[in-house]
Amino acid sequence: MTTLQVPRKFNFSAGPAVLPLEVLQETSEALFSLGKTGIGVMEHSHRGKPFVAVLAEAEALAREVMGISSDYAVLFLQGGASQQFIQVPMNLLQGGTADYLETGVWSEKAIKEAKRYGTVNIASTSKAENHTFIPKTHKFTAGSKFTHFTSNNTIFGTQFRGEPTGALSPLVVDASSDICSKPIDVSKYGIIYAGAQKNLGPAGVTLVVIRKDLAEQGAKDIPQLFQYGEQIKNESCYNTCPTFSIYVVSRVFAWIKRNGGLAGMAAHNEAKAKVLYDCLDSSDFWKTPVAKEDRSLMNVVFRLPSEELEEKLIKEATAAGFDGLKGHRSVGGLRASIYNAMPKEGVTGLVSFMKEFEAKNG
Amino acid sequence: MTTLQVPRKFNFSAGPAVLPLEVLQETSEALFSLGKTGIGVMEHSHRGKPFVAVLAEAEALAREVMGISSDYAVLFLQGGASQQFIQVPMNLLQGGTADYLETGVWSEKAIKEAKRYGTVNIASTSKAENHTFIPKTHKFTAGSKFTHFTSNNTIFGTQFRGEPTGALSPLVVDASSDICSKPIDVSKYGIIYAGAQKNLGPAGVTLVVIRKDLAEQGAKDIPQLFQYGEQIKNESCYNTCPTFSIYVVSRVFAWIKRNGGLAGMAAHNEAKAKVLYDCLDSSDFWKTPVAKEDRSLMNVVFRLPSEELEEKLIKEATAAGFDGLKGHRSVGGLRASIYNAMPKEGVTGLVSFMKEFEAKNG
Repeated sequence: MTTLQVPRKFNFSAGPAVLPLEVLQETSEALFSLGKTGIGVMEHSHRGKPFVAVLAEAEALAREVMGISSDYAVLFLQGGASQQFIQVPMNLLQGGTADYLETGVWSEKAIKEAKRYGTVNIASTSKAENHTFIPKTHKFTAGSKFTHFTSNNTIFGTQFRGEPTGALSPLVVDASSDICSKPIDVSKYGIIYAGAQKNLGPAGVTLVVIRKDLAEQGAKDIPQLFQYGEQIKNESCYNTCPTFSIYVVSRVFAWIKRNGGLAGMAAHNEAKAKVLYDCLDSSDFWKTPVAKEDRSLMNVVFRLPSEELEEKLIKEATAAGFDGLKGHRSVGGLRASIYNAMPKEGVTGLVSFMKEFEAKNG
Repeated sequence: MTTLQVPRKFNFSAGPAVLPLEVLQETSEALFSLGKTGIGVMEHSHRGKPFVAVLAEAEALAREVMGISSDYAVLFLQGGASQQFIQVPMNLLQGGTADYLETGVWSEKAIKEAKRYGTVNIASTSKAENHTFIPKTHKFTAGSKFTHFTSNNTIFGTQFRGEPTGALSPLVVDASSDICSKPIDVSKYGIIYAGAQKNLGPAGVTLVVIRKDLAEQGAKDIPQLFQYGEQIKNESCYNTCPTFSIYVVSRVFAWIKRNGGLAGMAAHNEAKAKVLYDCLDSSDFWKTPVAKEDRSLMNVVFRLPSEELEEKLIKEATAAGFDGLKGHRSVGGLRASIYNAMPKEGVTGLVSFMKEFEAKNG
């Protein structure tokens, strides 16, 4: 075991984000030798037996933890969610119409890319009210190819409590910022995709869970690298896959499994979010722009009476060991991202700090 | 420092490939805390100061080690060289003609993708002779958009000794398997790209060195993520960049710098390759399909009198601690990949083993 030379801080960054310490320990050993192979995890051929076993375990754990049936393929791709904004319509839109729910910056970006490949119908939007809520009614299109939504909005701090209802085509979700934070009924989806760097691992790998029949219907006149069907046929190795990142993701899935699976994560996340939102609701010193029923359990967005106080809090919190609390550069304010790997002590510690800060500055 | 629990093997894998032990040591410490930040390198926001400094250092070291002027941008992208097979013509071909030198499987793949975006002229090819040599004369096209070649062919074991001469348009090179193995005159190129997983770091990040004026001429009607100009404007962070992989690449560049830079690497690589080729040339027991003047200093491809003996050698070599010697599945035989990070002892040890094997089985 590596001895920590520097005390670890509580990291509230929105992503890349905190990872479980146990995963870091395992990874640090695997850097020098994956198991007893005498070759580090970054150095193994992606086609050799030891790494093929890592990839198989990552897939098996994803299937077990998320409850993914054999009707679906599990892929580990590159390019982040932003590349899926392109790949999804490139494969599936083919000049047709898709329904998109517009609930924040990331859905806006996904919409922008989809328009290159067909018609986008904005089924619902929270844009006029600065994305402070999740729309509950939607206007879907008969004959649409798919229905796309962003399950959690990191920047605005809103989150879908369940799937949007009434969709007329397969649901496609960008679940980058709440993947594996709670149980999910995969059978309700056509595609679930998520950049790993919030709840699953390092930046540089994207989990894509896709219904096989949908993948088969994908466009064939696009680069092979971008065809889901080709990636399924090649088990994520059309070209060299991001081997190290996939290893870390497999260790995170194993950690989720050891800690009660998705139900365990949900209980853990609800408890953490409650502590923080209770503090925010306890006085007018704290302001939360988000509709109460749509509050994100992953990214807790809040404001203080003035920007000066916000800056002061960030500075003092950082000094006290609570890092990454600055809101997204596009909206300002404060944001505490409390993904799966944020321990409860991090949140209770932050709340104690906030109470003290309020007492001094309120 | 982490104590190694398992003795390390000599790893002759073609990629992902061996990394310097010092880089693994640095990385294992950074996993828990990048410098004194108390937050691990995988966990830092790509927009936070500590990681922004990592990215800046990676770029500065790349510029220093490779001698890259300010006329060029240095990008760290995702998707591997295979995505560059697409991105290069997607940006630059625009319905025009490009010259491609066909010297192996990877150039064939690049050619296949380029045809989606314009006309490909095969300026020269070694295909009819199973890519056992590097063509010395080429038929270039007046008015072509760019001239693409693969500087080293991992599968067939051939390598360009210098740039192809007489090209009529900017040179674009897939240098994935010999990047930074020897000095390079960057000013001769329009684009140099390389998947990191041979000489630069882990799979999952691609170095792209591109002349800025060429990037500016790139297509604007393609997804922003794929536009070189957008990636330059966003300093590789149009979306979350592969932060961990970039960190490792920066450590590898620092290691190259400490070890004599590219001239030091060249001397080291020439000495290693000589030891191995001298052994192969010493008797008829060993067969090398490649034209002598075009032999790769990175991937040494050879055969034995029978496939049974080849299998036997691989098995016994693996048991003796020399791993990854199996040739590419498409061509069979043996291949010793001896990238920058392979120590000379690995090669001299392998040659001693080979001499013994020959004495017993020759």
